[in-house]
Amino acid sequence: VYAHQEPRSFNGSLKNVTVDELSRQGCTVTVSDLYAMNFEPRATRKDITGALSNPEVFSYGVEMYEAYKKRSLPGDITDEQKKVQEADLVIFQFPLYWFSVPAILKGWMDRVLCQGFAFDIPGFYDSGLLQVCWARCQVTGDLGNFTWHGTLHFCGFKVLAPQINFAPEIASEEERKGMVAAWTQRLQTIWKEEPIPCTVPWYFGQ
Amino acid sequence: VYAHQEPRSFNGSLKNVTVDELSRQGCTVTVSDLYAMNFEPRATRKDITGALSNPEVFSYGVEMYEAYKKRSLPGDITDEQKKVQEADLVIFQFPLYWFSVPAILKGWMDRVLCQGFAFDIPGFYDSGLLQVCWARCQVTGDLGNFTWHGTLHFCGFKVLAPQINFAPEIASEEERKGMVAAWTQRLQTIWKEEPIPCTVPWYFGQ
Repeated sequence: VYAHQEPRSFNGSLKNVTVDELSRQGCTVTVSDLYAMNFEPRATRKDITGALSNPEVFSYGVEMYEAYKKRSLPGDITDEQKKVQEADLVIFQFPLYWFSVPAILKGWMDRVLCQGFAFDIPGFYDSGLLQVCWARCQVTGDLGNFTWHGTLHFCGFKVLAPQINFAPEIASEEERKGMVAAWTQRLQTIWKEEPIPCTVPWYFGQ
Repeated sequence: VYAHQEPRSFNGSLKNVTVDELSRQGCTVTVSDLYAMNFEPRATRKDITGALSNPEVFSYGVEMYEAYKKRSLPGDITDEQKKVQEADLVIFQFPLYWFSVPAILKGWMDRVLCQGFAFDIPGFYDSGLLQVCWARCQVTGDLGNFTWHGTLHFCGFKVLAPQINFAPEIASEEERKGMVAAWTQRLQTIWKEEPIPCTVPWYFGQ
């Protein structure tokens, strides 16, 4: 799931070597190039093509759950869900905007990992734990810990360590080549990696 | 800055009482209703209307900075920047999607709080500190702490305590009314509130 506007960027290079290296390993690689697809990030009622479950008060989450069960989600969402279901490894490749993902990728998460679909990923949504987390967040304001790893965790993903490249725009050409090489090397053994713990310490009552 | 699809929602009620209470106090209130505006969340080269500073390799951040200096940013961005500049208090009202803001609001941050504009907000972008934070994040993977409060902090905002309403969709009507009343009451003295610390403990070398 690739979110950069420019194929000739550092992000583009990382995406290209990923496709090359995984293909070399014999993997079938599918790229969702979100900007090239002009992927819709807005979660609106246009995503509900049939009758609304509650036309009085529109709730995106409720309506998406119903639409998922009726298999009436729009094609741009179901295409992405199919890719996720068929994937053994999902890589998110993006620049950090304001310490988080670009809006176009946030929209991918909001719409593709919708209620219903996410329920069906094995391991997703132990609602008891989720409620505990929400309650704790309410008290402590400690929402940040969940934003990325935790969200994927709740969607049933096993999360590998992030690969973060620090400020490539001010790195030298040689340093950038080193970053790309390090990532390529990691890909060679990525299938043997163990997931990282991505829950906060108090998650299991510690 | 309001991001909910449904005027009759809990979020809509909170927005309405905010407008009413602040108006009652004599404030001029401007609402950016992002879904009603169909606000564009995608940060694309369409935002650059003139010649590109570097047509070989498109960098959104670099091009936006140049466009800001040339005053050639698109109107939907400059309209929002003007509102921010004129505001004494900015309230973000939104449901939590995946423990973060909806993509449409993330896009508002990505595009409106762009390089150049954010530089010009007093207090923004002590680049030395920002670099220290990035370096530390790289080592610890501790990106979550910045996501919301930290981003606003770096943009020069003084951040007040968040008002979080826990799971209104499963609360009783009476509980929801209590939440709205509590927020209305808080607004009555919000101008006397002190900013919260929104930096991580190691930020100042502790």
